Amino acid sequence: MYPSDDNFRYCLTFVCMEQKQWIFGRHPVLEALQAGQPVEKVWLQQGTRGEFEKDLRQLCRTQQVPMTIIPKERLNRMVKGNHQGVVALQAVARYQQLDDILPFIYEQGEQPLILLLDGVTDTRNFGAIARSAELCGVHAMVIPVKGSAGLTPDALKTSAGALARIPVCRVKSLVSTVEFLQQSGVSVLASDLSGEEFLPGIELTGPTALVLGAEGEGISRGVARAADQCFKIPQLGTLNSFNVSVAAGIMLYETMRQRSLV
Amino acid sequence: MYPSDDNFRYCLTFVCMEQKQWIFGRHPVLEALQAGQPVEKVWLQQGTRGEFEKDLRQLCRTQQVPMTIIPKERLNRMVKGNHQGVVALQAVARYQQLDDILPFIYEQGEQPLILLLDGVTDTRNFGAIARSAELCGVHAMVIPVKGSAGLTPDALKTSAGALARIPVCRVKSLVSTVEFLQQSGVSVLASDLSGEEFLPGIELTGPTALVLGAEGEGISRGVARAADQCFKIPQLGTLNSFNVSVAAGIMLYETMRQRSLV
Repeated sequence: MYPSDDNFRYCLTFVCMEQKQWIFGRHPVLEALQAGQPVEKVWLQQGTRGEFEKDLRQLCRTQQVPMTIIPKERLNRMVKGNHQGVVALQAVARYQQLDDILPFIYEQGEQPLILLLDGVTDTRNFGAIARSAELCGVHAMVIPVKGSAGLTPDALKTSAGALARIPVCRVKSLVSTVEFLQQSGVSVLASDLSGEEFLPGIELTGPTALVLGAEGEGISRGVARAADQCFKIPQLGTLNSFNVSVAAGIMLYETMRQRSLV
Repeated sequence: MYPSDDNFRYCLTFVCMEQKQWIFGRHPVLEALQAGQPVEKVWLQQGTRGEFEKDLRQLCRTQQVPMTIIPKERLNRMVKGNHQGVVALQAVARYQQLDDILPFIYEQGEQPLILLLDGVTDTRNFGAIARSAELCGVHAMVIPVKGSAGLTPDALKTSAGALARIPVCRVKSLVSTVEFLQQSGVSVLASDLSGEEFLPGIELTGPTALVLGAEGEGISRGVARAADQCFKIPQLGTLNSFNVSVAAGIMLYETMRQRSLV
C-alpha cells in the first residue's frame, strides 16, 4: 500500500502565480533565472545580440528553460510595459530532477510508477492527466522541454491542484530518460496503437514507466523503439482512439488494479 | 464479441449543422418541431402569450425539447435577424427512445451496456465521454432533458464524431429510466463516492447500466436511491475525484475487461 500522507510526496516549492505570472525586462528575467526561480518559458526578441543574449542563452541552457525567438510585435502583445525585448512566463512549481526522485522512491520501498508524456500540448488534457496521476499514486511525471504543456496557471487549475502535489521533470530528451529508467531497473511500457499486446495483458506490478503520446501523432519513433514494450488499450468501436487524458486514466487504473492496492 | 459493423448501430439521422445551427422566427421554429427535426433547445421571449405560445409549449412537450423563457435582449444577442421572440438550436442528431433500443439489443443476443449521465453539463466532458462510450461498445447514452450537455455541434466535435454514431436518449426523469431499466432486467450501478464497493469488485458482465454524476455534485439522491448498487473508483491520492470523462473511461474499460471482449 502506498502511504497517502504528504511526507511521501517529494518536496515541491509551490509559488502562487495568480497575480504575478509574467516577468519582463532584461534585468528581472536574468535575475529570476540566476536565482533559480521556476520559469516555464522565455521569449526573446528577434535580432537580439551581445552579452545579454549570451548570458540569457547560457542561463536557459543550464536551467533547462526553453527559449523562443519572436518578433517585437508579439512581445508587445504579450505584456503591457517596457519588456526590453525579453519576456518570461513563471512556472507554478519547480521542475524536479528524475535522478533525485528515483533513488528516493526505491529507498521508501516503493515500486516506481513514472508517467512520460511525449508531446501532450493541450493544457486541459495535461491538467486532467496530472489529476489522474495524483489519484493513482504516480511518483513523477516527465515531459520534454520542447513541445509540451507545462506548469502554467491554466494547467494547475485543470489539474485540480495536482500539479502542485506531483513532481514534474522536464528533460531535453525523452529517449535518454527511457534509457536512464531502464538502467535503473524500470520497465518502460509505451501506449501505441501499433503495439501487439493489450493493456490488461501487460505486467504492471514491478517498477514501471508508462509512456503516452500526443493525440493523433502518438509517441515519437525513437521513444517507441527505446521502450521495452508497446501496448494498446482494447477498443470495440470504430473511432481511432481514446482522448489522451482518458487513455492515461485507464492505464493508471489498470496499474492500481494489478498492484492490488485497491 | 460485439459486432463492430455499422449495421448494428441504431439508425441515426445525422444532420450537418456546420452552417445552419439556429432556427428563429415563429413559423420556422414551429415548422421544425412539427416536422420532428432534431432540436436541442428552444428559447422563448418573456411575456409571450396567445395561441403561438400554447402551440409551442405543446410541441416542446411532445417532442421532449426543453424550453427556457428569457428577456428579449438575450434573444437579440443570440441571433442576428428578426427572431419574433423565439429561437431554437438544432441538434446534430436525432434523440432516440430507450424503449425502442433495449429490445433491439436483446434481440441481437447482446448484453446491454447503457450509460446514464446525471447532470454532465460541460460540453468537452460530454464529448469525451461519448468518444469513450463508442470505443467501449456502449449501446446508448441517456441524459436528462434539463441540466445536461446535449447534441450540439461543439459536443459532436469533442466527441470525435462519436455522437453521430451512438444513440443518445433524452428523458424527463432519470429515476423513471432507472426503474424502466430494472424492469427490463438491467442492473443499474451508480458511481458515487459514498459507495462501499470498489469498481474492480463490481459484476459488470450481465445487462448493465452505469450512472455517472456531475463533477462536484455527483449523482442526484433519487437516482442513487433507485440504483441497484453504488460503487467508487479506487484512488490513492489526496484529491477529491477523477475528472468525469476520465471516470467514465475507467468504468467502461473495466466493463470491457470483465466481459473479456478484449
